[in-house]
Amino acid sequence: MMKIFTFWRSLASFRVRIGMNLKGISADENFVDIFAGKQNEPGFKLINPQGLLPAIVDGQGPPLVQSLAILEYFDEIHPEPPLLPKDPRGRARVRALAQIAASDAHSLFTPRVRNYLGKNYGVDEAGQLNWARHWIDLGLRAIEDHLTSEDETGLYCHGDQITIADISVASLAVGQQLFGGTLTAYPRLAEIFDRCIEHRAFATAHPLAQPGAPTSL
Amino acid sequence: MMKIFTFWRSLASFRVRIGMNLKGISADENFVDIFAGKQNEPGFKLINPQGLLPAIVDGQGPPLVQSLAILEYFDEIHPEPPLLPKDPRGRARVRALAQIAASDAHSLFTPRVRNYLGKNYGVDEAGQLNWARHWIDLGLRAIEDHLTSEDETGLYCHGDQITIADISVASLAVGQQLFGGTLTAYPRLAEIFDRCIEHRAFATAHPLAQPGAPTSL
Repeated sequence: MMKIFTFWRSLASFRVRIGMNLKGISADENFVDIFAGKQNEPGFKLINPQGLLPAIVDGQGPPLVQSLAILEYFDEIHPEPPLLPKDPRGRARVRALAQIAASDAHSLFTPRVRNYLGKNYGVDEAGQLNWARHWIDLGLRAIEDHLTSEDETGLYCHGDQITIADISVASLAVGQQLFGGTLTAYPRLAEIFDRCIEHRAFATAHPLAQPGAPTSL
Repeated sequence: MMKIFTFWRSLASFRVRIGMNLKGISADENFVDIFAGKQNEPGFKLINPQGLLPAIVDGQGPPLVQSLAILEYFDEIHPEPPLLPKDPRGRARVRALAQIAASDAHSLFTPRVRNYLGKNYGVDEAGQLNWARHWIDLGLRAIEDHLTSEDETGLYCHGDQITIADISVASLAVGQQLFGGTLTAYPRLAEIFDRCIEHRAFATAHPLAQPGAPTSL
């Protein structure tokens, strides 16, 4: 059986869990407490030397890492329901929205970045929170601009089917909530997020629905 | 004809230029001076409201943004030579290596991030340089770990054909050089980078080979 290395608070793991739920993929869950630094211990470094979550072990071959690469892998080995549209332009748009959320925003406020700011630049907790909020806001704003100005937006980020864009946007929206913010400044995104989070695949993957999570924000 | 919005110093534009060269795709080049802040002026914001390079205008429909999404688009509309292997696991590995370079490393040291560190956290130029060097080093180290420990590594990052992984790794390696570093600590990566940069598609796309670039580092 497939193994996933995950943690309730990891937004990248949240993305992968949503994909697994949508595709009906099950895996043995292995929890790696990133608040306790378990991702940097030798045991996990054997799985992912980069010390980042999530990682997937699926049969022979090196572990699979990087949430967006894993989601594309799921889409290729389990094509239904598709997580990308059929046309190249649509696929490019969906992948770009996913990258804005995961790469331009989320990468900038992961624990390793906030810790580095604290340790090497003397940035206190309030400063680290402001840092996270700034990049989350820019990411949500950029996505809202795409959603409101482009005709391809539908019930979801791209038309009326859930794609990798919705998964990534949902992870950033939950990040905003985990850091104490709201989505009121991004109404189109908020409407799509509300639709996503009502879906069982998103709801059961939610960080706060995972073992070890606090009962509320 | 396709239009590309680009700048010599943009590593994400470098990735897209390599892909265009490999595929034989030509485009009208529009230079956006990110050192002069042109990416934040209304003219370019109409193309990409996020104010980031590169962007591609290809016929009707919204501009294409995000270098990795654009490279996948090129690969779908011009399948030869392929920039991804055929098997889903190989594709996942290639996409993961590309994400490590572009998302986990490059996203953290773009001009907007360094400027924000300077303006809001009082980090001087030396501190900004250290910041960039730190994330570049972690990215190169993570990629070197994959390249040395995984059998899939060949003449290039994945087997003996150029993929999106090589394009992304080359952009990070050039970033290291632009910030005054070397690749000696990452010998397998350096060997692959040397092979890439001898290729005409990489050499002619190099930041220092573009209009407006300084004649040397």
